[in-house]
This record gives sequence, structure tokens and C-alpha cells, in this order.
Amino acid sequence: MVNNQSLSPMGHSSDEELEMKEVDVTSLSSSHRHTENLPYVHKVGLPQKQNLLKEFKNTVKETFFADEPLRPFKDQPRSRKFILGVQAIFPILEWGRDYNLTKFKGDLIAGLTIASLCIPQDIGYSKLANLDPQYGLYSSFVPPLVYAFMGSSRDIAIGPVAVVSLLLGTLLQDVIDPTKHPAEYRRLAFTATFFAGITQFTLGFLRLGFLIDFLSHAAIVGFMAGAAITIALQQLKGFLGIKNFTKKTDIVSVMHSVWGSVHHGWNWQTIVIGAAFLGFLLFAKYIGKKNKKFFWVPAIAPLISVILSTFFVYITHAEKDGVQIVRHIKEGINPPSVKEIYFTGEYLAKGFRIGIVAGMVALTEAIAIGRTFASMKDYQLDGNKEMVALGTMNVVGSMTSCYVATGSFSRSAVNYMAGCKTAVSNIVMSGVVFLTLELITPLFKYTPNAILSSIIITAVIGLIDYEAAILIWKIDKFDFVACMGAFIGVIFASVEMGLLIAISISFAKILLQVTRPRTAILGNLPRTKVYRNIQQYPGATKVPGVLIVRVDSAIYFSNSNYVKERILRWLTDEEQQLKAKSLPRIQFLIVEMSPVTDIDTSGIHALEELYRSLLKRDVQLVLANPGQVVIDKLHASNFAGKIGEDKIFLTVADAVLTCTPKMVEEP
Amino acid sequence: MVNNQSLSPMGHSSDEELEMKEVDVTSLSSSHRHTENLPYVHKVGLPQKQNLLKEFKNTVKETFFADEPLRPFKDQPRSRKFILGVQAIFPILEWGRDYNLTKFKGDLIAGLTIASLCIPQDIGYSKLANLDPQYGLYSSFVPPLVYAFMGSSRDIAIGPVAVVSLLLGTLLQDVIDPTKHPAEYRRLAFTATFFAGITQFTLGFLRLGFLIDFLSHAAIVGFMAGAAITIALQQLKGFLGIKNFTKKTDIVSVMHSVWGSVHHGWNWQTIVIGAAFLGFLLFAKYIGKKNKKFFWVPAIAPLISVILSTFFVYITHAEKDGVQIVRHIKEGINPPSVKEIYFTGEYLAKGFRIGIVAGMVALTEAIAIGRTFASMKDYQLDGNKEMVALGTMNVVGSMTSCYVATGSFSRSAVNYMAGCKTAVSNIVMSGVVFLTLELITPLFKYTPNAILSSIIITAVIGLIDYEAAILIWKIDKFDFVACMGAFIGVIFASVEMGLLIAISISFAKILLQVTRPRTAILGNLPRTKVYRNIQQYPGATKVPGVLIVRVDSAIYFSNSNYVKERILRWLTDEEQQLKAKSLPRIQFLIVEMSPVTDIDTSGIHALEELYRSLLKRDVQLVLANPGQVVIDKLHASNFAGKIGEDKIFLTVADAVLTCTPKMVEEP
Repeated sequence: MVNNQSLSPMGHSSDEELEMKEVDVTSLSSSHRHTENLPYVHKVGLPQKQNLLKEFKNTVKETFFADEPLRPFKDQPRSRKFILGVQAIFPILEWGRDYNLTKFKGDLIAGLTIASLCIPQDIGYSKLANLDPQYGLYSSFVPPLVYAFMGSSRDIAIGPVAVVSLLLGTLLQDVIDPTKHPAEYRRLAFTATFFAGITQFTLGFLRLGFLIDFLSHAAIVGFMAGAAITIALQQLKGFLGIKNFTKKTDIVSVMHSVWGSVHHGWNWQTIVIGAAFLGFLLFAKYIGKKNKKFFWVPAIAPLISVILSTFFVYITHAEKDGVQIVRHIKEGINPPSVKEIYFTGEYLAKGFRIGIVAGMVALTEAIAIGRTFASMKDYQLDGNKEMVALGTMNVVGSMTSCYVATGSFSRSAVNYMAGCKTAVSNIVMSGVVFLTLELITPLFKYTPNAILSSIIITAVIGLIDYEAAILIWKIDKFDFVACMGAFIGVIFASVEMGLLIAISISFAKILLQVTRPRTAILGNLPRTKVYRNIQQYPGATKVPGVLIVRVDSAIYFSNSNYVKERILRWLTDEEQQLKAKSLPRIQFLIVEMSPVTDIDTSGIHALEELYRSLLKRDVQLVLANPGQVVIDKLHASNFAGKIGEDKIFLTVADAVLTCTPKMVEEP
Repeated sequence: MVNNQSLSPMGHSSDEELEMKEVDVTSLSSSHRHTENLPYVHKVGLPQKQNLLKEFKNTVKETFFADEPLRPFKDQPRSRKFILGVQAIFPILEWGRDYNLTKFKGDLIAGLTIASLCIPQDIGYSKLANLDPQYGLYSSFVPPLVYAFMGSSRDIAIGPVAVVSLLLGTLLQDVIDPTKHPAEYRRLAFTATFFAGITQFTLGFLRLGFLIDFLSHAAIVGFMAGAAITIALQQLKGFLGIKNFTKKTDIVSVMHSVWGSVHHGWNWQTIVIGAAFLGFLLFAKYIGKKNKKFFWVPAIAPLISVILSTFFVYITHAEKDGVQIVRHIKEGINPPSVKEIYFTGEYLAKGFRIGIVAGMVALTEAIAIGRTFASMKDYQLDGNKEMVALGTMNVVGSMTSCYVATGSFSRSAVNYMAGCKTAVSNIVMSGVVFLTLELITPLFKYTPNAILSSIIITAVIGLIDYEAAILIWKIDKFDFVACMGAFIGVIFASVEMGLLIAISISFAKILLQVTRPRTAILGNLPRTKVYRNIQQYPGATKVPGVLIVRVDSAIYFSNSNYVKERILRWLTDEEQQLKAKSLPRIQFLIVEMSPVTDIDTSGIHALEELYRSLLKRDVQLVLANPGQVVIDKLHASNFAGKIGEDKIFLTVADAVLTCTPKMVEEP
């Protein structure tokens, strides 16, 4: 079976002669033999047997090195390879050489904008993680610096984010009570951060980054919306000034806490301050949304709110009327925390487990952001390299009193709109946070907690992407189920439960796909040689005496039995219909194998059983267009020999032509 | 977009007019317009929007009721429906009506043959399960009777089998020591059997039978071979007459036990008896294999061996020289055991867990056998109904002192070859076992254990299907890994570990398939309108200025990002090659979507990102032949509108024709 051998219309190989016996040769008039589409000119290609090692190498390459990270290293002298290697680890060395003043201007403005946004957010987010406010600021100082040197996204803004803070807070407080044992709690937080970093680094280094793709877009939409609502509900504590608040995050417990304290727990002064500034923040957000030019309005509104409200509380001494304030933020930059990480003892395993979960969620967010902006500015992002950068950043962070940092949706969007050019904007932000820590933290003493709550509520509202949910509903109902499953799981149970539901539904979808593939009956589109699904093309006509079935998936152990039985059911259905109409019976069953991208031993067995069943019914099995891998395996298993090489065709049209010799003369 | 609207060659809809602007209309000479393959006669079909409920119903139907179990009930009067319902539960009422003497003759001979085979096997297998010999016989009395009434396979022979006995034995002895607490051990065995039955019944009743398909053929081959070797190794205890034998099943522990006792634990009389009869049994097996007519020789050889060796020990009193004998089998049929099942207490959960595992493995074996013989005699087998029958059989069994019974490979093959016609052969076998239990159990007193070991070794050798393993190696390397993983896991670790490895590798394969689908560059086969993978068809030629990529899988969240990046990489590669040769650059990227059977929201996002990236590179995105589901979603998400309806074609050939107006005049 050589492919090119029979390119000449007259040069039939002996195989083809054999094929001819089946059909009435005279019916293949010469006029047909010379039209544009010569029948039997081409046979199904059987590619040269690949070397086993080569095949294995190819599989490994496509699985782990699909993006060819080593391509630039090819055919380079050793010294150049070394430089390229260092540049691969520290991309700043590459893009830094083209850095200029124009770019810096963009980065400076972007950096200042995101800094003004991140400082109040950080203070609030650290509360979600049950940590003192300075830890949020610490996490906006070291990690962005590390990322700027190692990361390759130009638009991401690094720091603590709401969802990860909440996730970390709830997971950690299940192990240690943060109010009773704050020191141990903090140590566990650093331990979890360390292992989150290790997880991220390892995934990237082993090039297993594709694992995060298993959290589908739909699941993320639902998860984020659920987390946003959960976070907003948590803010009711600060917003209403409630003192005894539940530790749980589900909506039922929280609403119970809120209503239970309505008569003696709410503080009206707090509510007034919170509501006023929430209104202001939402209005700023509205302006920013309405006119993209005013993107900076919602970006600096939080800082303005903080300044105004702090000043207001300072002069009115509202804290004496029960308005809760920040009270104290430790001055100075990050103290080292290497020794605080649990490397032994029972907390090691617990920190490890929490770190994996938090690290994966943080990765998902960062990579999604990175990819979005990379595709908007059309540059390539190596997901695995990003993971190494993010992992290193969190490992370093865990040793400098930071908790898990990642890319923030809201701040990255602001960064992008403010015109950032490179990761230098993160360095600028980091610098501002450094100055804040060194100089002005005492000024935050009178900042009311209600303001922080308002800022967080405003920030997380953006995570509720109901338009995406509507689109998901329109496109794919199963995706919508995953989306709503994650959403409801987060809101009514817990953040982890939502994640678990989302992943389970996504997996169930994959399994359903490989267990119950689609099959279709094909018909001929009038006046063409094209055969298409008769459901999709009602104009397509069936060929008398021939049933053409297309199998829409690789045939694997998980579906081989289903595929076989489904094909037989199509045949039974068709035969019943024909019998009812007294039409000629089916003599040929053509299986269109174009979409069958692979077949395994169970699949071959299923085909053999199909062949046997068809023999009993006096129906001939014909295959059309098996792909490279499939034809290879049909030969390896000798199934091709069993049904006969002459029963395997390049196209459905060729197969039909052979099956229905009379048909050729009819049109 | 109506399909039939433009069937007339001249009747272009306004959509098509639009399409024409792209190409040089005059170049489409009338001679081309009137050849057999008219371009633009057909457009991509957009099927009518399905009702959501209908869509959901269809999915549920294909997933759980793919075999249409309710078809015969359709349009029948109520009384007929009732009769059909009863017949569905008890198929014996259906086939029993056509039962006649000829069939009975076949069934009688087959029944007697499998009975003579099963009695010695049962006594041996119950030892594998650490139970007294009568329990093996009990399990060959009640379960076959129940199955005969409820099962629909005509060839399966029901009873205890080696692999399930071993699995049950090792799982149970991890919980309770069978020598120290035999009563509790037995109660746990019944509990596990009860839950094995419940598991099987539930899977069938909920129509979740497809779950057992996830144990691939390759994994079963490896698992069975490993289990066979493990079982054979276990027989060394009886075969060599070793008294202190390890409880573990892995090859290292067993060989350690065997060599450790070589000087003071082996009994030469036992070895002589065992070896002599093993030789006889293997010779009988050889004869049966050589000439299919003598299939009954290996079938009755075990019973002859038992009779001869028992008589020999009885007259020589070899048991006094250390030859271990059966000693005692309780007379009489199964005592009730409902009250022995643990329905409360700590053993409930353990029995439940063991029952699930044993039940699933037993199901896998029974369904595989049922399907094999059904396809050989070409009758349909409803897997889910079979599971209900098997489940009921084991639940009833657990209440009548039986342990897990299922279909036996070796006995079913003998049953088939002996000419069984219906499940009546099981009733005959059951009757013989009944007589054995009532009358002749005392005669087994002097049966040497070595004979039972020889019989088991001979029986399990057939499970080592090295030819299948070689075929698996030839067909699919990944399957071979699963096969060897299961094999090595069973041999070197434990039966459960082997199962776990097999299932994990099988899942990994499915995940790899959906994570890294194949893509291919297509070329035109000379003198046809057919476009095929240029790797498979080296004769295919690329179209200048056009890159045609085929994506070989549904585009889902798990692969959407990979697919996008892989397509862009093909483009980059191609552009570099063209640049090197100073050929015209790529202007059109055609994505052949025939194998893309589905797309989800992540997939749509990936296409949008691809479209954006291509826009930046000034390359037009063109889609060819999106299927029913895909075109529907392209419209729902408005992606079709974004790239332009006129960029979506029925075939690659149509797309190429539009992309390269000059091409039309060239040939």
C-alpha cells in the first residue's frame, strides 16, 4: 500500500484490481474515470511505521512541551545558550534592554494608580485571611518585586486577592483559631504560603501546567461569583459593626448572624459612614465604567475614601460611639519569617494540604489574567514559566512574612487601562507600598473598618460576571450546570465545596463525552460527492441499500461497546423502516471514520464484534477514511485483513460508488 | 440560513451574494458551476433550535437508555405491558415457552459437564476465600438457580470463580483473621456478598452499567494474568504441603515463604501426588485444546483426578505421612444466613466497602463473558438487566450461606462447547451440586489438598492470555502500559493495588486524549477535491497562501488553550518555512472542523482568542464543516457573526476555492 504509486489514472496496483472485482467494472464508464474526481485514484494512506522511541518522544513532547520552550535554544552556541537560559529565568534581562523613558512614563502612572488601589484593598483582604493589616501590605511589597524579575506578563498586578484571602482564611481557621492562637495561626499561614509556592513552582517546573486547565472557564465564573457574594456577606460584619459574627462562610450561617444581631449588635454610626462611602465608591465605579477615560476615578476612590473617613473619625472621635477602627498597623517593612514556617510536626501536613489548594486557586486566577491580557496585546505567555515565577515569588514571600499573593483581576485591569508597558509598574507599586510601610502606617489608626468593608464590596462586585453566565447558558447547558454548581456550592456550603463541585462536574462532562459519543446517519447532498449528517442537512438523501454511519469520537474502552451497539441500533431502525415501506434491504454498512482519531484494543474488539454481527445479518462492513493512527492499528491487529483491504476507502463517496454499482449509471 | 433554499444552482440567497464579493466572481466560469461538484450549492446546515427539555431528554436517553430497553413496551395495551414487564424481569418466562426436548438434551449434557468441572473447583476456590469447602458448593447451588430465572445470557456458567475468591479472601483477612475468628470472618463474607449484590443490583437498576466499561480490556488482561499467577503461587502451599505459609499474596512474600520452608516444610508424598495429577490435568487440557471435539476431556479430568487420588489416599492412608486432606465437608444444602449478615456495627462499613470492590470485579467478569458469547451467537444482551440479575442472585446467595458468585470464564467456555442452549444447563448443574451436597460430601474426606491445588493451577493458567498481551502491545502502547501496570501491581503488591493501577492508567489515558488532541496539516490530493493529512498522504499538496489545520477532537476547557496555541504554532512554523523559501505568506487559515464534535464556552473563548491573534497577523480565519452542535454554538455565542458567516464553509474544498480565486483558473 504505497500512496503515490497509483497517482496515474491507469496505473492500478494489484490491490486495486482486487477491489474492482467487487463492482461491475463496465459500469465505471471511462467518462467517469476522467472527471475531476477520479474514483480509486487514491487509497487510504498507511504511513510508515514510526519508531517506538520516536513515537514515545512525540507524545511526551506534545504533552509536556507543546509550546516548544526550547525552540530558541536550538542551534545556538553554548555561550548564547547560557545567556538565553538566564533570560528565560529572568525575562527582565531580555525586555529590560529595550526599556526607555516612554515606557517608564506609562509604567509610573500605572504603578501609582494600582498602588493607590492596592493599599486599602490589602488592609481589607488581610482581614479576610484573619491576619493583621500589615501582612496584606507586606504581600504587596516583596512578591511584586520578585515577579517583576521572573514573570513574563506585562499587565498583571501582583498582590493579595480577595478570593485567595478568603479561601486561605477559612481553611486555616478550621485548623487553628486565629483569635486564640494568633502566633500559631500566622505560622500556619506562612507554612501554607510556602507550600502554595512549592506547588506552583513544581507544576511549572515539571511542565504540568495543563492541569489547571481542568478548572473550566464556566466553573471559574461560577466559583468567582459565589466567592464574591460570600466575601461581600462577610463584610456585613464590618459594615454593620457586628461584634459576634459567625466563623462560617455559608449564606445561611451569615444571614443568621446578621439577623440575630439586628436589635443589639448593629451600630448606626458605622452603617452611616459605610453606606455613604459605599455610595461614593459605587458611583465612582459607575463613572469609570461609563467612560473608559475616567478609569482612574474608581482606582483612586478607595484611597480618597480612606483619607476622608479617617480624617472624619479622627476629628469626631466616632470610635467612642462604637465605630470600629483599624487601631494599629505595625510600622516598618517585612520581618523575616523563615523560622516561623512549620517544617516538622502535625502542622506541616495541614499547611501542605492548604497550600496545595490555595496555590492551585491562586494559579488559576493568575494564569487566566495573564492569558487574557497576553491575547489582548498579542504576545505569547509560557504558562509553565509563569508558574515557576509565581511559585518562586510565594516561596520568597513565605520567608518574608507575606501570605499567598497572585494576580488580581481588578488591579490588573486598572494597570492595563492606566497604560502599563512592562512589569515595572509592579516595581513602582511595590515602592509606594514600601514608603507606606515605612512612613505612614500610623495614619491608618483611625480608619474605620466599615470603609475597608465598603472597598472590598466594591472590589468583589466586579467578580460577579452575570453576562458571562448568560452566555454560558446560551452556549452550553452542561457548562452552565458546572457554573451554577460551583456558585451554589460556594454560597451554601463552603469555598472548598464549591471548588470540588466545579471540578467534579467538569470531569463528569469529560467522562460523558468519552462514554457516549455522538453518532450520525449521513446522506448525500444532491449534486455533490459530499455526505453529511441528515439531521443537520435535511436535504441530504440516503443511498438505497447503503447505511452510512459516522462515529464522532475516538473509539476507546470507555465507549467501544456503546459505539458497536449504537451502530447496530441504527441498522435495526433503518431495516425496520425499509421493511415497512417494502424497500430493498441494507446490504452495506459504511462507517465514516474521519472523526475517529484513535482506537484502542477494546475498540478493535468492538469492530470485530460488529463485523461478526453484520456477517450474521448478511451486511457488509465498509470503512471510510480511517486516519493515520487508526489505519495503522487496523493493520497491526489484522482487522484490515479480516474485513478485506478493498473494504477501506478514502472517502464515503468512493465507498458508495463501490457499494452501489448501479448508482453510477443513474445520474 | 435555510439549507434547501439554495439547491438550485442559480438561486443564491443574499448571504451567498455577500460571500461572492470575496472571490473574483468571473473566475467561476460557468463550466465550473455546472460540473458534478457545484461550489456553493450547499451551505453549512444550521439545524432548528431544539427544545431544551427535548435536548435534555435526549442526553439522558443516550446516557442511560442507549439500548432502548423500553422499545418493546411502546404502543402496547396495559395487560401486554404487564406481561412484558414480568418477562423482562424473568426472561425464563419468555424463552421457557419455546423450550423443547432437543434444547434440553443440549442443556443436560452441558449441565452435567460443567457440574463435574465445578465441584472440585468450588472446593478449591473456597480455600482461596478462606472459607470451608462446603461454601464453594453452596455458591454453586443457589446462585445458578436464581440466575437461570432472571438472567438473559444463554451460555454463562454461574458459580464461585478464582479471581473473586482470591480478592474476597485477601480483603476479608485484612479485617478479620479467618483462623482465629472463623465465625466472624464468615459473617463478614456474607455481609460483603450481600453488598456486592446490592452494588450490582443498584448499578443495573440505575442504568449505570456503563461504569464497568471504565475497566479497559487491556487492564483486564493484565489484571487476570496477574491474579492467575498470584493464585497459582498461593497453590504452592497445598502443592508442596507447606504448613506455615504467608498471608500476603505478593510474589516476594510467597517465594520467601516457599524457600524458607524448603528444608523442613515440604512434603514429598504430597508433591508426588500433586505433580502426577498436575501432569495428567495439563495433558487433558492439551488434548482439549488440540482437538475441539475432545473439549470434555479437560472438563471431566478434574473430577477423575479427585476420584482417583481420593481412592489412592484412602487405601494407602497417605494422610498419616503428612499428606494434607480435605477431612470434612458438611453434609446437606445451604443453611439460611440472613441473621449472620452484619447490618450494624463496625463490620457493616467494612463489609460494604469490600462488597463494592468484589461486586464490581465480579460484574466485570460476568459482563465480559456474557457479551463475548452473545456476540458469538449474535443475540442482544442488556448489560443493565444482567446486573440486576447478578445482583439479585448474590443478595439471595448472601442469605443462603453463599459467597460472591459470578460467571466463570473456563466453565462458561465448556458450557458453550458442550452445546448448551439456555440457562437450563445452570439448573442441571445446580441439581448435581444439590445431590452432591445431600449425598456424597463424606466421600471427599480423603481428597488430598494437593489435587485441589493442581486443579486450580490448571484452571487459572487459562487466564494468562499472553497472545492478547502481545496483540495489545502491537495495537496500542498505552494500553500495554495499563495492562502491565495491572499485572505488576497484582503480582508485586496486591490484587487491589493492581486494580487501582489499571483504573488510574486508563483514566490518565482518557484525560491525555482530551488534553492533548491531535492536529494535522491538510493538503489536497492531486486531481480530487479531497483534503487529507499530509503526514498520512505524502502525495497531498499544500495550497499556496492557505494553511489548512484539522483539529481532531471536541474543543473543551481541558484542551481549548492547547488547541489555540497548537494552531498558532503550525502557522508560525509554516510562515518560517515560507519565509526561508521566499514564498508568498499565509493569508488564510482554514480550520477543518469535521472531527470537532462539540465545543464549550472555553472552546469558543479559545476560538475568539485565535481570531484576535490572527487579525493581528493579518491572516483570515476560515472554518470548514462545523457539525450540528458546533455551528449551533458558534451562532449562540455570536462567534459566527464576528468572523462572518461567509467564512464558514461546507467543505475544505469550498473554502479553498473562495480563499484562492486564482486557483480556480489554474488546473
